[in-house]
Amino acid sequence: MTRNDGRTIDALRPISIKRGFTGSAPGSIYIQAGRTTILCTASIDNAQPPWMKDEVSGWVTAEYNMLPGSTSPRKRRERGKTDSRSTEIQRLIGRSLRAAVNMEALGPRTITVDCDVLEADGGTRTLGITGGWLALADAIASIAGDLPDAGKVFRSSIAAVSVGVHEERVLLDLDYSEDSTAEVDLNVVMTGDGDFVEIQGTAEGRTFGRELLDQQLDVAAAGIAQLTTIQRETLGDAWPLAN
Amino acid sequence: MTRNDGRTIDALRPISIKRGFTGSAPGSIYIQAGRTTILCTASIDNAQPPWMKDEVSGWVTAEYNMLPGSTSPRKRRERGKTDSRSTEIQRLIGRSLRAAVNMEALGPRTITVDCDVLEADGGTRTLGITGGWLALADAIASIAGDLPDAGKVFRSSIAAVSVGVHEERVLLDLDYSEDSTAEVDLNVVMTGDGDFVEIQGTAEGRTFGRELLDQQLDVAAAGIAQLTTIQRETLGDAWPLAN
Amino acid sequence: MTRNDGRTIDALRPISIKRGFTGSAPGSIYIQAGRTTILCTASIDNAQPPWMKDEVSGWVTAEYNMLPGSTSPRKRRERGKTDSRSTEIQRLIGRSLRAAVNMEALGPRTITVDCDVLEADGGTRTLGITGGWLALADAIASIAGDLPDAGKVFRSSIAAVSVGVHEERVLLDLDYSEDSTAEVDLNVVMTGDGDFVEIQGTAEGRTFGRELLDQQLDVAAAGIAQLTTIQRETLGDAWPLAN
Amino acid sequence: MTRNDGRTIDALRPISIKRGFTGSAPGSIYIQAGRTTILCTASIDNAQPPWMKDEVSGWVTAEYNMLPGSTSPRKRRERGKTDSRSTEIQRLIGRSLRAAVNMEALGPRTITVDCDVLEADGGTRTLGITGGWLALADAIASIAGDLPDAGKVFRSSIAAVSVGVHEERVLLDLDYSEDSTAEVDLNVVMTGDGDFVEIQGTAEGRTFGRELLDQQLDVAAAGIAQLTTIQRETLGDAWPLAN
Amino acid sequence: MTRNDGRTIDALRPISIKRGFTGSAPGSIYIQAGRTTILCTASIDNAQPPWMKDEVSGWVTAEYNMLPGSTSPRKRRERGKTDSRSTEIQRLIGRSLRAAVNMEALGPRTITVDCDVLEADGGTRTLGITGGWLALADAIASIAGDLPDAGKVFRSSIAAVSVGVHEERVLLDLDYSEDSTAEVDLNVVMTGDGDFVEIQGTAEGRTFGRELLDQQLDVAAAGIAQLTTIQRETLGDAWPLAN
Amino acid sequence: MTRNDGRTIDALRPISIKRGFTGSAPGSIYIQAGRTTILCTASIDNAQPPWMKDEVSGWVTAEYNMLPGSTSPRKRRERGKTDSRSTEIQRLIGRSLRAAVNMEALGPRTITVDCDVLEADGGTRTLGITGGWLALADAIASIAGDLPDAGKVFRSSIAAVSVGVHEERVLLDLDYSEDSTAEVDLNVVMTGDGDFVEIQGTAEGRTFGRELLDQQLDVAAAGIAQLTTIQRETLGDAWPLAN
Repeated sequence: MTRNDGRTIDALRPISIKRGFTGSAPGSIYIQAGRTTILCTASIDNAQPPWMKDEVSGWVTAEYNMLPGSTSPRKRRERGKTDSRSTEIQRLIGRSLRAAVNMEALGPRTITVDCDVLEADGGTRTLGITGGWLALADAIASIAGDLPDAGKVFRSSIAAVSVGVHEERVLLDLDYSEDSTAEVDLNVVMTGDGDFVEIQGTAEGRTFGRELLDQQLDVAAAGIAQLTTIQRETLGDAWPLAN
Repeated sequence: MTRNDGRTIDALRPISIKRGFTGSAPGSIYIQAGRTTILCTASIDNAQPPWMKDEVSGWVTAEYNMLPGSTSPRKRRERGKTDSRSTEIQRLIGRSLRAAVNMEALGPRTITVDCDVLEADGGTRTLGITGGWLALADAIASIAGDLPDAGKVFRSSIAAVSVGVHEERVLLDLDYSEDSTAEVDLNVVMTGDGDFVEIQGTAEGRTFGRELLDQQLDVAAAGIAQLTTIQRETLGDAWPLAN
Repeated sequence: MTRNDGRTIDALRPISIKRGFTGSAPGSIYIQAGRTTILCTASIDNAQPPWMKDEVSGWVTAEYNMLPGSTSPRKRRERGKTDSRSTEIQRLIGRSLRAAVNMEALGPRTITVDCDVLEADGGTRTLGITGGWLALADAIASIAGDLPDAGKVFRSSIAAVSVGVHEERVLLDLDYSEDSTAEVDLNVVMTGDGDFVEIQGTAEGRTFGRELLDQQLDVAAAGIAQLTTIQRETLGDAWPLAN
Repeated sequence: MTRNDGRTIDALRPISIKRGFTGSAPGSIYIQAGRTTILCTASIDNAQPPWMKDEVSGWVTAEYNMLPGSTSPRKRRERGKTDSRSTEIQRLIGRSLRAAVNMEALGPRTITVDCDVLEADGGTRTLGITGGWLALADAIASIAGDLPDAGKVFRSSIAAVSVGVHEERVLLDLDYSEDSTAEVDLNVVMTGDGDFVEIQGTAEGRTFGRELLDQQLDVAAAGIAQLTTIQRETLGDAWPLAN
Repeated sequence: MTRNDGRTIDALRPISIKRGFTGSAPGSIYIQAGRTTILCTASIDNAQPPWMKDEVSGWVTAEYNMLPGSTSPRKRRERGKTDSRSTEIQRLIGRSLRAAVNMEALGPRTITVDCDVLEADGGTRTLGITGGWLALADAIASIAGDLPDAGKVFRSSIAAVSVGVHEERVLLDLDYSEDSTAEVDLNVVMTGDGDFVEIQGTAEGRTFGRELLDQQLDVAAAGIAQLTTIQRETLGDAWPLAN
Repeated sequence: MTRNDGRTIDALRPISIKRGFTGSAPGSIYIQAGRTTILCTASIDNAQPPWMKDEVSGWVTAEYNMLPGSTSPRKRRERGKTDSRSTEIQRLIGRSLRAAVNMEALGPRTITVDCDVLEADGGTRTLGITGGWLALADAIASIAGDLPDAGKVFRSSIAAVSVGVHEERVLLDLDYSEDSTAEVDLNVVMTGDGDFVEIQGTAEGRTFGRELLDQQLDVAAAGIAQLTTIQRETLGDAWPLAN
């Protein structure tokens, strides 16, 4: 089976990453997978969230937004209210990134990771997690001198990818046209060590049995291993975890 | 290991269901699992949703809401805006119920399943799905005479349950106190035939490997089989699928 | 004149009340009059409302809400904003219940009485007051040990009923079909001692003279006396006022 | 008993009325009672409200708003949301004015009566009704030529006044300082013929018996008779009802 | 060229001003230019705005609102949200008035100037500034005794006027019909000493060259000099600046 | 006088522009001036805005938004409501771009130009106009084949720049630190032919006389001439106007 862009069924789209894309936030990652393009920035506020008073640990939260021009037709700007899809996605990104962080080692700070989608061609939530973790790493590196033990802040790296089922075959890293016709849609978030952080699988056109689920998890794990390698190469010496 | 309420680790909480609890909606199910209590009503609007114009099939959507008095301390009423947790949950319930329905056989109608939580003690989203499917079945039965082929509306029955990991053991159907301390939280939605509809797993305090995931999926499948039996007994002759 | 359900013109609908319907709130009353069904919960917050700072007395407030499935066609959920009818009703319920309470004896607490309508068939605002007072009584009983003089918290019991004029005859406790065609609609809130707390009369299709007002007030007073008796029987030994 | 401004207990405050205060709306009444000052404008839209489609009759609605500078301290402008007191008041004004109008004779039009309070010193809701009816009369007169039978549009004139109980005495037309200390607050809306349109009585500090209610209704009726005379003198030949 | 109302092209509309129009706010100016009518009230809050904590100076802010009946057809009330035109106008009024005030001499207070348009016939934003400054002057005079050096609060007087280009001629103080057809619309805010505070020029139907801009600025300056004279006469001995 | 970045007082910041930055919108311009970075996309909707029904011409509108990570500290995302500064800016951008377009030649379409600020260091509103016009040009070029006379759509090119006064000297194209301390802030929008489209001048710390205004206008005009040259070079053969 050949895919639109000539990829094999178990290949990621080509990834391109720029660190320090903007200078206004301590973590600023421009990440592209195929045509999907996201600006992930991580900003630090030296205060806990209001509901966390009287504790000593920190917090990591995320916001997700598609720019109006990121799709055709144009997506209406979320000003009146946040749309429910964005709400669901940003909760997923936030939970996933928090799993990577030792909040006590971070200390009483709030880091907000903003994933603003510049162009959307499928897989924005998983690419936001992969890029968001890099922005988080750069932001924490920028305050390493203020932390008692910066080396303990990260428990693991985090990356994510989608898999889907199309005509009984499992595809890795779906673009928008593939996602629209997939019968099953599974988003997998894993640590660099191969443990699960989040699994979200949805039957779109057909329900699915255990065997097909197992195949999808295998393909996803292989994809995430590649993404972890790319994350490592991107950060180089700034990789925040022991080798 | 003994649980608070004396259950074994793989036992469901006692389930109690009343059909036709209120008379104002064609489907009205009062469902209790332990202390968690939900009123699921299904209302029929003989019109498609606005975005569906020019099509001939129907739509099923869901709303989820916790009554302010359903928890202690009281939960602030969602009037200014829907909270993001409710948004996420009602999207899950809606997707799950839609997987059960053949929208063309339903015809140009919108059925809204409202899951209003009267008392919350863990597992509200999964119990809402299990009860919501029953309300949907009763609502569709009420218009069977208006449908060209009522027997084709349902593709399957749907039920859901949570599983979690606590001190390396997999627990079925967590109550609130168990849910708060679980290290992994997995919600599984399946058909009566044992296929997956939705899987949502989240690492709360620790990430988890493939083996533990497999154990959880086994326990969930066994729980859902029991729930399917209860759904069958509840509907009796009104069971909308072939035996 | 015979009414739809066979009642005489001055008869209440059959009343059914369950105390402790849910376990999550200290006061939880399930109350039915005919088909109108309301869950009234009373929750206690050990803090004054924000605008009451620097005072020593407490506050009682109410919220009113119809569940979407409580009517046919389904009522749109009040999430974007509270509808103006609900606003007006919950202000009435709050004022009525506050008239029953000695706020200094309650001390610096806020009790919120939530009236969530499960099925609506007319008279929801008055039944919400009658049931809400019972929920309030149970909630205050639950903290009697924390109050310096629990016996002084209640000044009176409170109950409410509607009366209307239809074809020149005064009807007690209108159901929805009667309410829709009534020419005058009068809601009366009284203490168990027969004093007025609130009177709200509205000419719907015709204005009304003093004599007809007097007749309506007589019928309402008799209905409230019956409701007070039912409240007394419901609480039994928990009746919070001197006999 | 002497009142702050030297009035007797059954006297209205001095009333001042200007017709055609602004030129932008067909009905524009500037009305003052003591220091309470309201601009009531009535605007005509040659369309029915959206929910009234397929009918031939018209509609009258009202909005009530206090200007921020109308009180001291300044009242926050209702832009985020309408406050619940304003909601309740404008519903009362709208219902009261609708009782005066034969909607079929008005034809498929919507008249909106806006009561914008320029200065608030008690009794704004009742003065809004008294002035709003005058604005409505002028607005309907402005389209008399377009109506098949303009003489049938009004069923009656409408006026309103407040009464209260202070130290066991019934006071007519309370100003703000009197209203703040009144034990009972009763707003009465009547036709020029002496029939009731709305009665809203609230126990503020004490409940009240039937006898005291009767006294208040007597005082209110006498006050409304005086207001009706003032309305008649204000409109002169433009009085829309038969004498 | 003759204008609708017979004015010459460089003449202001007739101005009418009443001080102390309402008694509830310390500054209350009713100002009319032709048919445009605005009630400007200035209210004093003895607190700084929240974002200004830990400073010793004050703040002046403005709100602008058109009453629904101020135009035909009726303008929908801004309750759901503030419309963007009002937002832009009230920001202009606020900035303009702040330019007049020495915030340290004012001390830790917030003065809010509300410009509520009773009738709109063009030029509401500029008339709001001219009248708003008068309300501000009266409000500050009312607290002169509480200020260490009241004479230093005002740096200057402020007035504003619109100019426009119609068929190659520059018109002063446009009414609504002129404004609708003007090709250029320029609002100019100046001090009584002839300095600029704000200039906002917009090409409506045609862009404009430097020469035409210069002519407009000349006409505006002459108009503002007349407005300053009127402001001086209005305040008389209460003029807050040295002569 | 030397500026922070070594520029002379009448020099623009270095400009960098990328066309077709994203592929999802027909016009997509990435524009940088110093560190200020904006993504301007122009999207086409083949429908008129709702309020324009029954006309044959088109419409151009703009939205302006700062990404949360575009400033430090992070800017709260505008989801609850649009902040008033953004409202004011997007109205300016929209009016400015509309001045460039012959709406009848555009036909019944709506083009929305979104200016999303990726990094903010002063001058975002003027750079948004300069870049927005380029995005508009590319979007219109993409539908040239569908237009009866594409050559008539543009009346002119549009560019904008800020000037300010600091210590009596006029500075061109202020960055954030300069803008914060400027005494006068003037934003000028001009056509490529040197006509004015919008002028918005604000006295921040001091008012200003006519002579200083004239100097600022001269400096702005020279800056805009340079920006027009850059726009011409950017579009090359795609320049939509006659030479």
